[in-house]
Amino acid sequence: MKNVLCAVSYKGTNYAGWQKQDNALGIQEVIENAFFDCTGERVEIFASGRTDAGVHALEQCFSVKTKFAQIERLPMALNHLLPNDIRILWAKEVPNDFHARFSAHKKTYLYRLKTSDIESPFDFDTTAYIDYSISLEKMREASKYFIGEHNFKSFCSAGTSVPTFERIIYSLNITKTGNLYEFEVCGNGFLYNMVRIIVGTLVDVGGGKIKPSQVEEIINSQDRQKAGKTMPAKGLTLKCVEY
Amino acid sequence: MKNVLCAVSYKGTNYAGWQKQDNALGIQEVIENAFFDCTGERVEIFASGRTDAGVHALEQCFSVKTKFAQIERLPMALNHLLPNDIRILWAKEVPNDFHARFSAHKKTYLYRLKTSDIESPFDFDTTAYIDYSISLEKMREASKYFIGEHNFKSFCSAGTSVPTFERIIYSLNITKTGNLYEFEVCGNGFLYNMVRIIVGTLVDVGGGKIKPSQVEEIINSQDRQKAGKTMPAKGLTLKCVEY
Repeated sequence: MKNVLCAVSYKGTNYAGWQKQDNALGIQEVIENAFFDCTGERVEIFASGRTDAGVHALEQCFSVKTKFAQIERLPMALNHLLPNDIRILWAKEVPNDFHARFSAHKKTYLYRLKTSDIESPFDFDTTAYIDYSISLEKMREASKYFIGEHNFKSFCSAGTSVPTFERIIYSLNITKTGNLYEFEVCGNGFLYNMVRIIVGTLVDVGGGKIKPSQVEEIINSQDRQKAGKTMPAKGLTLKCVEY
Repeated sequence: MKNVLCAVSYKGTNYAGWQKQDNALGIQEVIENAFFDCTGERVEIFASGRTDAGVHALEQCFSVKTKFAQIERLPMALNHLLPNDIRILWAKEVPNDFHARFSAHKKTYLYRLKTSDIESPFDFDTTAYIDYSISLEKMREASKYFIGEHNFKSFCSAGTSVPTFERIIYSLNITKTGNLYEFEVCGNGFLYNMVRIIVGTLVDVGGGKIKPSQVEEIINSQDRQKAGKTMPAKGLTLKCVEY
């Protein structure tokens, strides 16, 4: 039995998120079924973390214990069985105690947002849209307050039970290309909906509803009501996981 | 009755091309139906040219005669009725003798090609893939021979009846970003499958099957058999039409 780490890219539009569940199709289940068709094994795969319905991944990672011998052939073999919107990028053997979730050090998310009242046929399912303009300068000013170790309770959706709300954000970069804004956030881990609420708060700063300096107060308040709204899932992409 | 020019963006993946037809859904029919639902008029719309099944458009143009009074409201009104993969970008009144096809001076097409044995979930329907590497330098050298006025019979699929195979290509630029090659071709008009066969020939040059200088002979031969294969429709996008 080998412990294998795999990287997978997926467009989340047509799935009910990563996690296997009743009455809806999760990406996990699709990959586990492809594993069975490919190797005859009923495996359980463990991702670096769940992604919600509609959220995408450029390079999600999962680990799996398998008897399949030729690990280097695994991506091609699985891709023949997977739908076009899920693609295994690579696979490599890892030590037995390696776990895709618990061994992860850093994760980077990308949030795509366009300002336009017409959604493009080419990205309406991978990009959020707003129909007003926002200030890149103000959002960049506000983004500084997120860097470092903080209690991010203000940026966590209600109903989640976690041992601690402390997380470290290593970087938060915002770029603008035409009317496309890309928010790239790297951290040691993220609370439920944390990236989508951070971006929602930055959009409120960019639109003038919140002053950049107020972001510090919002973080300190540890009150979800003070932060901006949760942005739509479709704009969010897990970019990579570092081990 | 007003004569109106509209710009439309569409992802062609789910349609049997632009043209209205029996037993399959064309983009033209979808827009004409939206027109009826919006204005109560049964109109016929005339595009700058047809696009084939699977071909996309960033900014296709069509003209239409309509009694609808508020032209500036037309895009929003139609977009409410159209599917997400078809979007009207703008509409403006034009002289009565203007025709989207016959008044067009220039068209620009974009062909997207990636070199990888794994197709990305995010562009497998808008990008062609090959699993070998190609030389950008050689393709750029070969691209010079296409510029200017030529008889492009070698680059036209069989079975088309046209008065002349003479066309002018104003520019043909190839850019490379990572493993993505983008071929941008601007001309006064294009024969059936012309862009897809030109790109197929350039790919053969890039892969070493054809020498760059042979392209001149291929053009002069006026023989479809001498040119490269027709590249897949999904990589082709009509970028813009100039009047």
